Amino acid sequence: MSVDDRVARLRAAAGEAGLGAVLVTSPPSIFYLTGLDAEPFERLYAVAVTARGGALIVPALDREGAERAPTSLEVVDYSAASDGFPELAGVLDGVRALGVEQEHLSLARARRLQDAGAELHDAQALVMGLRERKDADELAAIRHACTVVVDAMERMFSGLRVGDVEREVNARIAFELASAGATESHPLILFGPNASRPHDAPGDRTLAPGDVVCADVSARIGGYWADLTRCATVGPPTDWAQRAWVVVRDAQAAAIEAARVGATAQDIDAAQRSIVEAASDLGACLHGAGHAVGAEIHEPPFLVPGRDAPLAPGHVLTIEPGLYAEGVGGIRLEDDVAVTDGDPLLLSDMPLELREVRVDQP
Amino acid sequence: MSVDDRVARLRAAAGEAGLGAVLVTSPPSIFYLTGLDAEPFERLYAVAVTARGGALIVPALDREGAERAPTSLEVVDYSAASDGFPELAGVLDGVRALGVEQEHLSLARARRLQDAGAELHDAQALVMGLRERKDADELAAIRHACTVVVDAMERMFSGLRVGDVEREVNARIAFELASAGATESHPLILFGPNASRPHDAPGDRTLAPGDVVCADVSARIGGYWADLTRCATVGPPTDWAQRAWVVVRDAQAAAIEAARVGATAQDIDAAQRSIVEAASDLGACLHGAGHAVGAEIHEPPFLVPGRDAPLAPGHVLTIEPGLYAEGVGGIRLEDDVAVTDGDPLLLSDMPLELREVRVDQP
Repeated sequence: MSVDDRVARLRAAAGEAGLGAVLVTSPPSIFYLTGLDAEPFERLYAVAVTARGGALIVPALDREGAERAPTSLEVVDYSAASDGFPELAGVLDGVRALGVEQEHLSLARARRLQDAGAELHDAQALVMGLRERKDADELAAIRHACTVVVDAMERMFSGLRVGDVEREVNARIAFELASAGATESHPLILFGPNASRPHDAPGDRTLAPGDVVCADVSARIGGYWADLTRCATVGPPTDWAQRAWVVVRDAQAAAIEAARVGATAQDIDAAQRSIVEAASDLGACLHGAGHAVGAEIHEPPFLVPGRDAPLAPGHVLTIEPGLYAEGVGGIRLEDDVAVTDGDPLLLSDMPLELREVRVDQP
Repeated sequence: MSVDDRVARLRAAAGEAGLGAVLVTSPPSIFYLTGLDAEPFERLYAVAVTARGGALIVPALDREGAERAPTSLEVVDYSAASDGFPELAGVLDGVRALGVEQEHLSLARARRLQDAGAELHDAQALVMGLRERKDADELAAIRHACTVVVDAMERMFSGLRVGDVEREVNARIAFELASAGATESHPLILFGPNASRPHDAPGDRTLAPGDVVCADVSARIGGYWADLTRCATVGPPTDWAQRAWVVVRDAQAAAIEAARVGATAQDIDAAQRSIVEAASDLGACLHGAGHAVGAEIHEPPFLVPGRDAPLAPGHVLTIEPGLYAEGVGGIRLEDDVAVTDGDPLLLSDMPLELREVRVDQP
């Protein structure tokens, strides 16, 4: 589906919802609707989709980039002396019922729009309803991103040696991913007890015999993210690592099996959670089953308790159960799975094994 | 100043402003007030500062990280089944007049807070008023970050060769910065005509004789950003490059000279703009003079026309005029400058020269 087709669908959905226009301000949604990769910092970037037209609004310094994007929307720019709101008002042309991405739009910008007479309606679900359902080209893009991440992870695991510094291992795979075309990456490779904190930052720790390695590596290639996790042990797995790995592997298999039309986000979480929580002697279940992935690394639906969003064909989900033992380590397994009309479709293709870093390797 | 001292100052400022509490949700402000580096994605991280107490609110999976942070605030966590709002409500305990970072807080979260009975007041300036005035430790951190970036840039320029691929040169310096301890980096090294678009993304272009190289490299080290730009030519500079470089160097000197107490943000912009715009035969002035820098790469005050924020001791500003000729290239120079009670203080220390990449270098 072309970016212009996506704009047309959003326009139709906005019309059905009684909105005079939709204002899209989050970079992944702007990318989805126009192909432009915006990096706003404090500046306004927006797609305004009105009943009969619309525009891509950018700072003047990005006019050329916007004009090269594969969108037919008019490009409206503004100078450094403007904050873009007068130009946006020109495009919106007095629309009252304005849909916004309310999980992204800041309160300050919302108040600016309200002060100018707009009534703000939540169009988050309208926009995400389109973005959530990936088409064939998007599935192919995610599958390609997965191959790049898998290649980089294979090289990283093969190259791991006792004494390697956590921060440097992360820096190196980020370099390899960027060299392979990733425009963003988010490696989180943690050693030993550090791996028991799934959101820790890589630091000075050196890899030691007996450590687990929990390697969560994500990268954006061709506009779409891949997000995978695999684990290794340094030397033969300890009893804890071996047992935890089997639990997590079983939990992941159950959660992937649950990723079907007819189920909800929380069903996938429940499928892994019941297995992980039953192994509480091995560690804690610190997070949900995963999240959707696409032009953004974390997208809804989020696979956590209480979310009853129904799964639909085209949803692409990370399935990533984990088990964490403070002071010991963490084991997590993560793959990217598309929901289809039939069986769940694995987009990432990497052997499902607990790898071993040989201690005596030169 | 300790993070607890900062919280105490914010509490005092909130009291004077008649606020019952302030809710801080942006990662750089959370870092400033607690020392915790939060990476929220869709999850709520918040510092709530109330009249007599407050808390650092984090997802359960980051409890350990929050407890290691150098804050005395109570850590309140919430499980994957919660979105953190019930726990936040417990901390706020019915406060009505609630200050928020309204340029960061999303409309969705604002509406949640309003639905729970809070009146939201803009506390952006209250929080930024503290963050803007860097203390001696923060100046030292930025100066240190500058030395790391300068080292990496020196090596990058020395290693540049005809035929180098733009994307790989950017990937390599990101790797070197991460290896040197940068937790984030943002290199933007562009070759030839690509450099005429100051926000372009690095791509497949190979370095060729006659190219300019515009190297804007920023990195966060020890919590604080450095942000510098230097340029080179491949072979002797063309007449255009030489003339543009002199204009930009003069514009930067004038803008640095203007970075004094008594001036405003727009005065610094005007100082460079008058010089750059007078050279319109050489290219366009596409952006303002710069921005403040600190725990965030772009902070207010923004040095653009129309901003009359007065400069104060402790402001740290990037001063980065540029001149851009479509199809030809771009020249920009950027240093990080502290406003003091006396003369502007350069925190970045890198020779101010138009470098030359030798075409015949092996």
